[in-house]
Amino acid sequence: MTTYMWQEIKEQPKVIEKCLALNQKAIDAIASHIRKKDINNVIIAARGTSDHAGIYGKYIIEIKKGIPVVLAAPSVFTIYGKDIKMDNSLVIAISQSGRAADALEVVRSARKQGAPTIAITNFEDSPLALESEFHLFCGVGEEKSVAATKTFMSQIYLLARFVAAWCQDEVFKNELDKLPALLTKTLALSEQIKNLVIRYRFMDECFVLARGTNYAIALEASLKIQETCYVRAKGYAISDFHHGPFAMIGENMPVIVYAPVGESLKDCKEMLLKLRDARADILVVSNNSEILEMGNCSIKIPDNVNDFITPFINAMVAQIFACNLSVLKGLNPDKPRGLSKVTFTR
Amino acid sequence: MTTYMWQEIKEQPKVIEKCLALNQKAIDAIASHIRKKDINNVIIAARGTSDHAGIYGKYIIEIKKGIPVVLAAPSVFTIYGKDIKMDNSLVIAISQSGRAADALEVVRSARKQGAPTIAITNFEDSPLALESEFHLFCGVGEEKSVAATKTFMSQIYLLARFVAAWCQDEVFKNELDKLPALLTKTLALSEQIKNLVIRYRFMDECFVLARGTNYAIALEASLKIQETCYVRAKGYAISDFHHGPFAMIGENMPVIVYAPVGESLKDCKEMLLKLRDARADILVVSNNSEILEMGNCSIKIPDNVNDFITPFINAMVAQIFACNLSVLKGLNPDKPRGLSKVTFTR
Repeated sequence: MTTYMWQEIKEQPKVIEKCLALNQKAIDAIASHIRKKDINNVIIAARGTSDHAGIYGKYIIEIKKGIPVVLAAPSVFTIYGKDIKMDNSLVIAISQSGRAADALEVVRSARKQGAPTIAITNFEDSPLALESEFHLFCGVGEEKSVAATKTFMSQIYLLARFVAAWCQDEVFKNELDKLPALLTKTLALSEQIKNLVIRYRFMDECFVLARGTNYAIALEASLKIQETCYVRAKGYAISDFHHGPFAMIGENMPVIVYAPVGESLKDCKEMLLKLRDARADILVVSNNSEILEMGNCSIKIPDNVNDFITPFINAMVAQIFACNLSVLKGLNPDKPRGLSKVTFTR
Repeated sequence: MTTYMWQEIKEQPKVIEKCLALNQKAIDAIASHIRKKDINNVIIAARGTSDHAGIYGKYIIEIKKGIPVVLAAPSVFTIYGKDIKMDNSLVIAISQSGRAADALEVVRSARKQGAPTIAITNFEDSPLALESEFHLFCGVGEEKSVAATKTFMSQIYLLARFVAAWCQDEVFKNELDKLPALLTKTLALSEQIKNLVIRYRFMDECFVLARGTNYAIALEASLKIQETCYVRAKGYAISDFHHGPFAMIGENMPVIVYAPVGESLKDCKEMLLKLRDARADILVVSNNSEILEMGNCSIKIPDNVNDFITPFINAMVAQIFACNLSVLKGLNPDKPRGLSKVTFTR
């Protein structure tokens, strides 16, 4: 497999090491600055894959810091032209290119109101990087595949590092220190996943489910499968899936369930039982042996990781799955039809 | 057609009239109470169809009131057991049954912190109604169809009425006064929609797109189509659809686009052009003649309505479409497989 997507997936353990080296000082400086402020809420502005990074950010900020997080509806700023009250907010804008016009509007409004702003981008001279008060630089090099992988990984890594610094959470910092090794371990699953996707050669639809922090990964996994394989994939939080979408589950419907050991495991197990009753075809991604056996097939991820760390591992599993399935289907994951790398939505 | 769903769709013009009569005093009292408070942000807790009502609420509060709105991630409270800072927040919990355990957790946490709480439910003696400081009572009578219609309509109507009162926005109030007549007008489209759905007898998938306030309706429309017709329907904001999901658009892919006259029209037109280039099969719901002609077929909604009002009309169009298609497919929209009326997700 010689796609850019695969090359970029493989770079990720090194990418995040470099990412930390590039940003350690900035992260500490920003965190110490923000700690002095009275922050009532955090506003995250992002779209597409970056929005999924933002959802991970929402969970970790709310859980670790206990401050509510707004996922900005950029059209409020752009098409409706309204400013919202952000004087006690921290604004985080996430965009691979740094050129998302809608996120830029949110940042401009925040700066006018004196709110601190952090941009997370892969271009130091991008409008978002230049116009935000602070910049966290992904620094992953050019991402040649249209399907984002290493930029997504660096975005959630920078979010996690920032939150760990903001909360002075030494335990979380230590956990994040182990990520390059964990991602290298996850990469070693790629042969197994390559064989597993053969089973999905003619899959034309699926659901991807998770709960809690990994909900962000369910969304990202389904986006990766959609854009690289043209498979109708839909990501859901397990809690929402009970409300309506479960009616879509008929016999043999493929469902991928991320069910790592952690706070969401009990809810995942309940959903797995319900899916088995409905005779869905289940792929379980977990590190719990009982749960792994509940699937028609499974991927065992590394042990001794919690809900703040499993999203990194699960994201990589999703990328490897989508990339291999795309190639197996005779498609080019680097160039999905109808998409371009930079999206200028206002 | 003798389904409960259809009976309940037809009741809606009367339902919202009754809803106002039941709640006018409460709305004014709550609004005057809230106006005295220094509200930094609003937190909305809801799931499924009620969550779609919450998204409409997010847009109108941010646009009309300029206060950022957090859509609560209930698992933060339930499975992770964390409280988030809500001392300067207004909390709105939306649940048809009033028994959503996760929304209840958010309300309890808010009350401990002294934040004002409003529940919007259809049961006066439900836990959410009893435990919230304020209650807005849908009062639509029992909803016998599992597919929610009139409760959704009453939820967005109560949200709109509350925001109009909170902002003392007389123009918005007058617009809302005209809604029963507008919904009656929309009901008159049902024969046309009944004939139109014949074309979709064998549709097994579709996308539903909109932007701005109608994004909530794109989500609700796709949920209705999923649960009553078992058609793989996916709702997207047009701005997000450029990022990845557009790759799913091949020749003849059915796409429903809500493109009413209003702030989002320009973006809708751009997407319609792109969809036509990709040879998608387009159903346009609009009140602009040029836009209506861009579809392979179309539904013309009433004129002289803005982005705050069109969601009501478009929701009804979606309900009529889903209900008729379900019956045409030989299904029972009142009893989707695998679903129950009350969902107890924690």
